[in-house]
Amino acid sequence: MSPRKHVSLNINVRGNGQSATLAINERCKCLQGEGKKIYNFGLGQSPFPVPTSVVDTLKLHAHEKDYLPAKGLPALKEAVANFHKAKDNVDISPDFVLVGPGSKELMFLLQIAFYGEIVVPTPCWVSYVPQARILGKNVRLIHTTFEEKWKMTARHLAEFLESEHDIFRPRILVLNYPGNPDGLTYSPDELKEIAEVARKYELILLSDEIYGQLNHKGEHASVARFYPEGTILSSGLSKWCGAGGWRLGTFTFPRDLDWLLDAMASIASETYTSVSAPIQYAAVQAFRGDMALERYLWHARRILSELGQKCHKILTRAGLRIHPPEGGFYLFLDFTPLTDRLAIRGINDSLTLCERLLQDAGVAVLPGFSFERPVDELTARLSYVNFSGSKALAASETIPLHHSLPEDFIERICEDTIEGVKKIAEWVSEK
Amino acid sequence: MSPRKHVSLNINVRGNGQSATLAINERCKCLQGEGKKIYNFGLGQSPFPVPTSVVDTLKLHAHEKDYLPAKGLPALKEAVANFHKAKDNVDISPDFVLVGPGSKELMFLLQIAFYGEIVVPTPCWVSYVPQARILGKNVRLIHTTFEEKWKMTARHLAEFLESEHDIFRPRILVLNYPGNPDGLTYSPDELKEIAEVARKYELILLSDEIYGQLNHKGEHASVARFYPEGTILSSGLSKWCGAGGWRLGTFTFPRDLDWLLDAMASIASETYTSVSAPIQYAAVQAFRGDMALERYLWHARRILSELGQKCHKILTRAGLRIHPPEGGFYLFLDFTPLTDRLAIRGINDSLTLCERLLQDAGVAVLPGFSFERPVDELTARLSYVNFSGSKALAASETIPLHHSLPEDFIERICEDTIEGVKKIAEWVSEK
Repeated sequence: MSPRKHVSLNINVRGNGQSATLAINERCKCLQGEGKKIYNFGLGQSPFPVPTSVVDTLKLHAHEKDYLPAKGLPALKEAVANFHKAKDNVDISPDFVLVGPGSKELMFLLQIAFYGEIVVPTPCWVSYVPQARILGKNVRLIHTTFEEKWKMTARHLAEFLESEHDIFRPRILVLNYPGNPDGLTYSPDELKEIAEVARKYELILLSDEIYGQLNHKGEHASVARFYPEGTILSSGLSKWCGAGGWRLGTFTFPRDLDWLLDAMASIASETYTSVSAPIQYAAVQAFRGDMALERYLWHARRILSELGQKCHKILTRAGLRIHPPEGGFYLFLDFTPLTDRLAIRGINDSLTLCERLLQDAGVAVLPGFSFERPVDELTARLSYVNFSGSKALAASETIPLHHSLPEDFIERICEDTIEGVKKIAEWVSEK
Repeated sequence: MSPRKHVSLNINVRGNGQSATLAINERCKCLQGEGKKIYNFGLGQSPFPVPTSVVDTLKLHAHEKDYLPAKGLPALKEAVANFHKAKDNVDISPDFVLVGPGSKELMFLLQIAFYGEIVVPTPCWVSYVPQARILGKNVRLIHTTFEEKWKMTARHLAEFLESEHDIFRPRILVLNYPGNPDGLTYSPDELKEIAEVARKYELILLSDEIYGQLNHKGEHASVARFYPEGTILSSGLSKWCGAGGWRLGTFTFPRDLDWLLDAMASIASETYTSVSAPIQYAAVQAFRGDMALERYLWHARRILSELGQKCHKILTRAGLRIHPPEGGFYLFLDFTPLTDRLAIRGINDSLTLCERLLQDAGVAVLPGFSFERPVDELTARLSYVNFSGSKALAASETIPLHHSLPEDFIERICEDTIEGVKKIAEWVSEK
C-alpha cells in the first residue's frame, strides 16, 4: 500500500512533525535514556504539583461518567466567570464560558469557526501558525523587536492595519501575556492603547492569559477590562494550576460574539464532545480557589521570579541580551551581541544554535524560529522549570511570604536549573 | 459588531447546531425541568457505572500532571494492543496505537489527515457526515435496507466501487458493528467477504468496534482478523466500560498506515496535545481487564440482551418492523408498515415522527434522518438505556450467569424503559 502514501495525505499536514515543545521533550527523554546528562529547558510545563485540594476533588468525582454539555459543566462555567470577575475585574456571564480540552484545542476550533484573518505578534507561542497551516489558512505576523521588549505597540498595530487595502477585513488579533516565549507582559496603559486601536478597527482580540496568575508581582491586568465588548479571554489549568497534563482550558466571550461561541460549541459537540467529566468537577475547585490556593500561587510567583532573575543575571553577564522576566517561566534569549563569535563557530541561525547547544553542552532550548522569528535571528526560548516544584514549594513555605528568599535558596533548590544556565554561559565563552 | 456575524463565520459551520445526540439530551433535560415526564431514549450513553477497579485507579493517579506523549501513555498503548490481541485475535504493536479524547475526535483527525473519500453505509452514526461538512469534505453514502438487516453486503460494496470512473481513488470505508443506530452486527463470513473486496480495491477500513464488547453473546469478531493490513480498529472506554464522559478513545493501525498514524499524532500535538493524564492511567486498568471486569461485561450483556428483546417484542407487536438486537443498546425502529396510518395523522417524515412522539407521548427518540437516512423514511433510533445500570448490575449479580434472568426482572428493574416503549406502542395504535 506504500505508493498510496504519496497521494492520500492532506498536503497541509505533510511533514509537519510534532509540536516543537512536545518534540524537544521526547528528544530529551531519548538522550537521557542513552545516559547523557541533559538540561531540559525545552518544554513549557509548570514545575509545581496540582494543589492538594484540586487533586482531592478529582478523587471525589472519579466516578462521574456522564457526557457533559459541550460548553462545559454549569458549575464550572460559573466558577470560571467568577474567577475572571474576581481576578480580572471583567464582567462575564457563565453562559459565555466555553470549556475545552486545553486552550490549544479551543484556539483550533476558533480557527475553524472564524472566517477571517488571524494576526499574531511574534515571537509567539508555537502552535498558532501550525494550526493555521493544518487548516490551510494564513496567519499574518507582526514582528516585534528586542528594543520594544518583544511587544506590539498600539502604533505598530495601527500602522499594520492602515497599510492594508481592506482595513475592516474580519480579523482576530492574538495577544499573549505574560508571554510565551518571552516572560514579559503589557502594562495597563499599553493595553488601553491597544484596546483603542482594536475598537477603532473592529478587531476581535483573543487574549491568551494562561500565565496571568503567574505574573511575578501578582499584578496581572487583562485587556478585557479595556475592551470587554471585543475580547475573548483564554485561560486554563495548565500553567497557574500546574495541571498541564489534565487538559482543561477555557474561553470566555463577550455577548456580541455569541455566534462564535455557538459555532465553536457546535464543532466541539461533533469532535471531542465535552471535556472529561471528572476533570471538570475538579476544575471547579481550582477556579473557585481558596486561601491555600492563593498561598500556593504566591509561593510559585516568588520562586519563579527569583529563579528567573538569577538566570537572567548569569546569561546577561555572559553577553546575551535578555529582558528581566515579569511573569511565567520563560526567558527569550537573544544571542545577537555574540553574532560574530558564533559565526566563527559556524552558527548563523537559531536552529543550528539550539542543535549545537544540545550536542555540545547538553542544554535543550527551543529556537526562535519555532516562535515564528526569522531563522537567521539568534534567539531561543529557555523554560526554567527543570526543578522539583514540590521541593521548592515545601522549602518556600518555611519562609514568610513578605520576606525574600535567602541568598542560597535558588542555588540549593533549583541546582540543576542554575547548573544548566551556567553551561550556556560557559558554552558561549568557548572559542 | 453584529453585522460582522454575517461575514466572518465559516460557511461550513453556519447553522450546524449541536450534535443530534447531545441536543436531544439537553432538550429532554429542559422538558423534564418543566415538570414533564419524559422517556429519554435519545442519548447513546451506557447505563452502567464505570467498574470499581477503574474508578479506583483514577483516584490513585489523580495527581498525575505531566503532558503525556501525543500518541498516548506507553503503558496504555501496550494494554490496548494486548486487549485487541486477546479479544479480537489481531496482532497489533503498541507503537501503532493512538489514544485520543474520544474516538469521535480521532475520526475527525483522520478526516483532516486523509486526502481521499470517506464512504459510509447508512444508517450510520450521527457525527461522520457533520465532521466532513465542517471540513468542507464530501462523504459518500451507501444506503442499506431493512431487508439487508441494515448491513452493507460485499456485493453492494463492489457494485458501488465498480460504478465509479476512478476505481482506485483513495478511500476509507467506515464500518460500525455492533451498530449504532441498529444494534446489529456482521457475521465473520460477511466480514471475510467485505475484507476481500476491500483488499481488491485497496480500500482502507475504519472499523468502529466501540460496542464490540457489548455483543450480546460475547462473540464479537473484528474485520481486522481478515484484513489486518488495511484495517484501522477503533475502540474506547465509552460504551463497554461505561465511561463516555471520561473521553478516551483508541485507534490501532496496520504497519503500512504508519504515515496516517504519524500525521494524526502531529495534528493531535497541535490541538488537544494528549489525553488527560489521570484518565489515561485509569484506562490502563480498563484495557488490561481482570475477572471482575469480565463478570461486569457478562452481566451487562445479559441485561442489555434481555431488555432489548423485550422492547423488540412490544414494538413489533405494535406493528413496527425491527430486527432483534445483537449487540449494544439500540433498536432501529422502522414504522414503514404503519405509513398510511401515520400519514392520516400528518406524519410523513422521520423528523415529524420524532417531534410528535416527544410532544404526544413524552418519548424522545432520534429520527432516521440524523443517521443519514432519507427524510421521508419513517425510521428512528431507540436507545434503551434509561434505567439505573448500578441497580440492574447489583440485581443481576444475585443470579448466576449461566441462568436466564427471571420472568419479571426486566419489568422490575427497567420499569421506566418498558413503560416508555409501551407508550410508543400505545401512541402508534391511536387514531
